[in-house]
Amino acid sequence: MPRYKLTLEYDGGPYMGWQWQDHGPSVQGAVEAAVAKLDGGPREVYGSGRTDSGVHALAQVAHVDLVKNLRQDKVRDAINFHLGKHPISVLDAELVDDEFHARFDARERRYLFRILDRRPRLALDRGRVWRVPVKLDTDAMDYAAQVLVGKHDFTTFRDTACQAKSPDKTLDMARVSRVGDEVHCEFSARSFLHKQVRSMVGSLVEVGLGKWNRADMKAVLEARDRTECGPVSPPDGLYLIHVNYPDLTAET
Amino acid sequence: MPRYKLTLEYDGGPYMGWQWQDHGPSVQGAVEAAVAKLDGGPREVYGSGRTDSGVHALAQVAHVDLVKNLRQDKVRDAINFHLGKHPISVLDAELVDDEFHARFDARERRYLFRILDRRPRLALDRGRVWRVPVKLDTDAMDYAAQVLVGKHDFTTFRDTACQAKSPDKTLDMARVSRVGDEVHCEFSARSFLHKQVRSMVGSLVEVGLGKWNRADMKAVLEARDRTECGPVSPPDGLYLIHVNYPDLTAET
Repeated sequence: MPRYKLTLEYDGGPYMGWQWQDHGPSVQGAVEAAVAKLDGGPREVYGSGRTDSGVHALAQVAHVDLVKNLRQDKVRDAINFHLGKHPISVLDAELVDDEFHARFDARERRYLFRILDRRPRLALDRGRVWRVPVKLDTDAMDYAAQVLVGKHDFTTFRDTACQAKSPDKTLDMARVSRVGDEVHCEFSARSFLHKQVRSMVGSLVEVGLGKWNRADMKAVLEARDRTECGPVSPPDGLYLIHVNYPDLTAET
Repeated sequence: MPRYKLTLEYDGGPYMGWQWQDHGPSVQGAVEAAVAKLDGGPREVYGSGRTDSGVHALAQVAHVDLVKNLRQDKVRDAINFHLGKHPISVLDAELVDDEFHARFDARERRYLFRILDRRPRLALDRGRVWRVPVKLDTDAMDYAAQVLVGKHDFTTFRDTACQAKSPDKTLDMARVSRVGDEVHCEFSARSFLHKQVRSMVGSLVEVGLGKWNRADMKAVLEARDRTECGPVSPPDGLYLIHVNYPDLTAET
């Protein structure tokens, strides 16, 4: 059975998240249903990781084994056809080695969080950004974000329902910048804890509002106490933008 | 009665267009209903011009006379509150002279048309861009677009239902550029004919596909014949991005 690496864009709004759920629609479920129509039977689609309810992807990565031996572009176009009205698109399908695993081989995951920093309500970008109506100090946010970089116990920034065995993670990059009236927060790590990005963004907004400074962020991190975290941001502005694999670094 | 200049962002998708219609929802109707709730009675809202069904605005301009004398930011926030679920947002409300007229005083209207130039279907940008699945030659498009600049009889690029008295218009600027996997077509003029931008974009795509060249575009313009126009683009990628008024040039 040939194995295909899929790169997927989706609007997370209508879904309970990437992972298959009993109680509502999932991106994985929609893609698996489309693959089943293409390949004539149920096939499991393995994602690089879960994205939460409402979280978007510009480039989620998954893999699937098909019975049919099809050209890469044919696989991409056929899954897209069978996805019907789902706001999900296969951007790329690539024939890969049988050993490739979307989850276990991933070396880096990169997220972007888009904040729209303006008073008036949303119109065109509903569900796509988090609106913060008060002007944010992005320099202070970027400065404070650097205390999160490195290997830490991220208990403060971890959802209480997180199933990871350890709260220790290494954050490789954190960057906050202003792009017009948007504030972009970018993070890169081998892996993240449940709601870690949204917890970090919510806390950084406390800094942007002037309520916290860099020392407060450091104290909150070192407290290893979930109750010290700032208000967790909504999922609307969060995008999984890149997953990196060994020998595929040219994709960056 | 104080007069307010309103700057509006909206998702044109759910509407029959800017202008009030008997047979479906309009942006103007939604804004007038919100203003009526704020001001205690029906008030006419005058737009800088009509946008067609499905066409978006980043900065449509309108004016309205209110009975109540309210602070500018209060007018903005109150209309936004009363707009409820409508994907419309008042970005700015400005107290202006009684002589100001959103339509008659407008000196320049600027439109952006976003093409997503990729094979895979849309997910996140549904209703926001026109997807063209074949690679476009944007240099050729920009070169051909220049024959449209200046004063011309735009009959070829005018909808047969257009109600303007004359097909003569002066196009001040046309620009086609690539932004990542998007192709942006920008146009500026004092005013446009009905479906003129979408007709020009559809024709420029013929150039981008290599079916037409600059000489063909010139011949099509000079034919003054609607049947010579390329396929009219859908409204999804079209945005009214700016309306310019005398003494308000700092807004550009």
